[in-house]
Amino acid sequence: MKAAVLHGPGQISADDVPDPGIAAPTDAIIKITACCVCGSDLWPYRGVTQRRGRIGHEFIGVVQEIGAEVRTVRPGDVVIAPFVYSCGSCPNCRAGWTTSCLVGGDYGFPDRDGVLVDGGQGEYARVPLADGTLVAARVPADDDSIPALLTLSDVMGTGHHAAVSAGVRPGGTVVVIGDGAVGLCAVLASARLGADRIIVLSTHPDRALVAETFGATDIVAARGHEAVAAVQELTGGVGADGACECVGTGSSWATAIGAVRPGGTVGYVGVPNAVQDGLPLRDMFDRNVNVRGGVAPTRRYLPVLLDEVLAGALDPSPVFTWSIPLADIAKGYAAMDSRAQIKVLVRP
Amino acid sequence: MKAAVLHGPGQISADDVPDPGIAAPTDAIIKITACCVCGSDLWPYRGVTQRRGRIGHEFIGVVQEIGAEVRTVRPGDVVIAPFVYSCGSCPNCRAGWTTSCLVGGDYGFPDRDGVLVDGGQGEYARVPLADGTLVAARVPADDDSIPALLTLSDVMGTGHHAAVSAGVRPGGTVVVIGDGAVGLCAVLASARLGADRIIVLSTHPDRALVAETFGATDIVAARGHEAVAAVQELTGGVGADGACECVGTGSSWATAIGAVRPGGTVGYVGVPNAVQDGLPLRDMFDRNVNVRGGVAPTRRYLPVLLDEVLAGALDPSPVFTWSIPLADIAKGYAAMDSRAQIKVLVRP
Repeated sequence: MKAAVLHGPGQISADDVPDPGIAAPTDAIIKITACCVCGSDLWPYRGVTQRRGRIGHEFIGVVQEIGAEVRTVRPGDVVIAPFVYSCGSCPNCRAGWTTSCLVGGDYGFPDRDGVLVDGGQGEYARVPLADGTLVAARVPADDDSIPALLTLSDVMGTGHHAAVSAGVRPGGTVVVIGDGAVGLCAVLASARLGADRIIVLSTHPDRALVAETFGATDIVAARGHEAVAAVQELTGGVGADGACECVGTGSSWATAIGAVRPGGTVGYVGVPNAVQDGLPLRDMFDRNVNVRGGVAPTRRYLPVLLDEVLAGALDPSPVFTWSIPLADIAKGYAAMDSRAQIKVLVRP
Repeated sequence: MKAAVLHGPGQISADDVPDPGIAAPTDAIIKITACCVCGSDLWPYRGVTQRRGRIGHEFIGVVQEIGAEVRTVRPGDVVIAPFVYSCGSCPNCRAGWTTSCLVGGDYGFPDRDGVLVDGGQGEYARVPLADGTLVAARVPADDDSIPALLTLSDVMGTGHHAAVSAGVRPGGTVVVIGDGAVGLCAVLASARLGADRIIVLSTHPDRALVAETFGATDIVAARGHEAVAAVQELTGGVGADGACECVGTGSSWATAIGAVRPGGTVGYVGVPNAVQDGLPLRDMFDRNVNVRGGVAPTRRYLPVLLDEVLAGALDPSPVFTWSIPLADIAKGYAAMDSRAQIKVLVRP
């Protein structure tokens, strides 16, 4: 089969790789019908983190084959794969922290038995722990809702985690830092949770437009100290109740901490690969700034958000601004790297 | 009058200082009947932070005189002073974050008009913003409950803030890091909030005994990696639901973060003067470890905790292990510095 392979910084292609097969009785083999490129895929693509090989972790597809112990999905089902696989029954999964599953893991890396788990950008993928991981989409594989449903694999669930972690509630004020797909989904999630005022930092008019479609009430076209000052002014000198940190740099963190009110909360989901110095605890202490979040347990959120997408109440699909075949994967990465596209959907 | 004056590291004495007088119509003058030495007073006493002059911020006393605009207390009232003064009406006070009052401040430093606000270790103190700050104790100045009530000025409210911030709830598991007066009060607060299991790290048998009196279910006589391993073992390899960080060093923070489960919360109140490197965000991100807390808004908690003390349902007074006259203030600091005493009560 063909699958995306990262050969080094800036070097990615759709290569011939071995077809996956059932390796454990809890596995399922998925024929991928839609997948996408994540902002976090850009870290190794840019060489910020050292990683080669198979890549991708967001996909929807049709179940081809299941292991002997799989009970909740069957061949022919259209399923959504959250961006990590998880058992659903260990103490951490039961507590809702599926990304800390005691036996789960990441796509594109060997499983606990040393067998490679395929990346999500390819024609097929073996999904371990299928019962705990996969969620049936309950639509045909060519349904118009597929792009919206694909966001539940990662970006919409991750934006939702940012908003939930930031304590967004009806009537509240939130500032969203980051106008990538996750930041935009955090805007949509904040609107869904009833925020009265959603301030978005964006210097890109096309992204600001999506943010407004998703419910942003104020766009601040600034960064750093200037952005903090603007948020403070918009909130009567007090600060926002919460901030969604969807970037993961020292600068974005300083902005998030500076933008919230005393007792406010930074909900964060940006992979902190570019935060050099650790969090400024003394400043947080003096103002009781809380920090919540981390790698999003999208599996936990998936059923509820799925129902809303199918009911037409939630549509994150505008984050996809370009659709390409798998053969063009290099163009997709380049377009996201240059920020020419918000998020690229890939049809294997 | 006599008041404690810090002259330099290790050098403190009860000196003659000017009597305070009403400087603003919102002031009250308090004749202090009981005050105490705080663990945070030891930072400048040890020379870790640079500060000289008047000191102390926890006291109970009798109102001597009030400014023309003071409405809620009158001369003769016995009142408890929270460890900062606050207006009670600005947006931050109204939201409950009295330690971030827009016009409040700290004892022992000049107020906004440049007039010195007395430290809390002395015979008298001018309290600015008396209506927002002081809480009537509703007992005589020599009541047996005075030591318990004095803890509501800081340590009990601060321990409570740690437990609330850590998300302690009925049935939960919490680990308390720090066996000083605040850590012990966090134990008591955790028990009050219904924690099922309260694990306390303590290598001092006398302090462990107070912890058990306060509701500790498990004492771990270890620190660092060894303590984390012990907590993990006590919690079935998952970690505690929450941790109360009541120390403020890099080592205590590493222990707190390591001891909580994925999705768990570190509630912190230890002044982070000895945290060198900032928080390890990447480790927090991977396990969704949340951080909540900061300088405790004890004024917010005071009325509820006061009622419970007066009803006999809450007694934090065992944290006071020694009572001294103001003239012996140097002995009191030395005893706390050497950890010979948990907390020293001072009778001016």
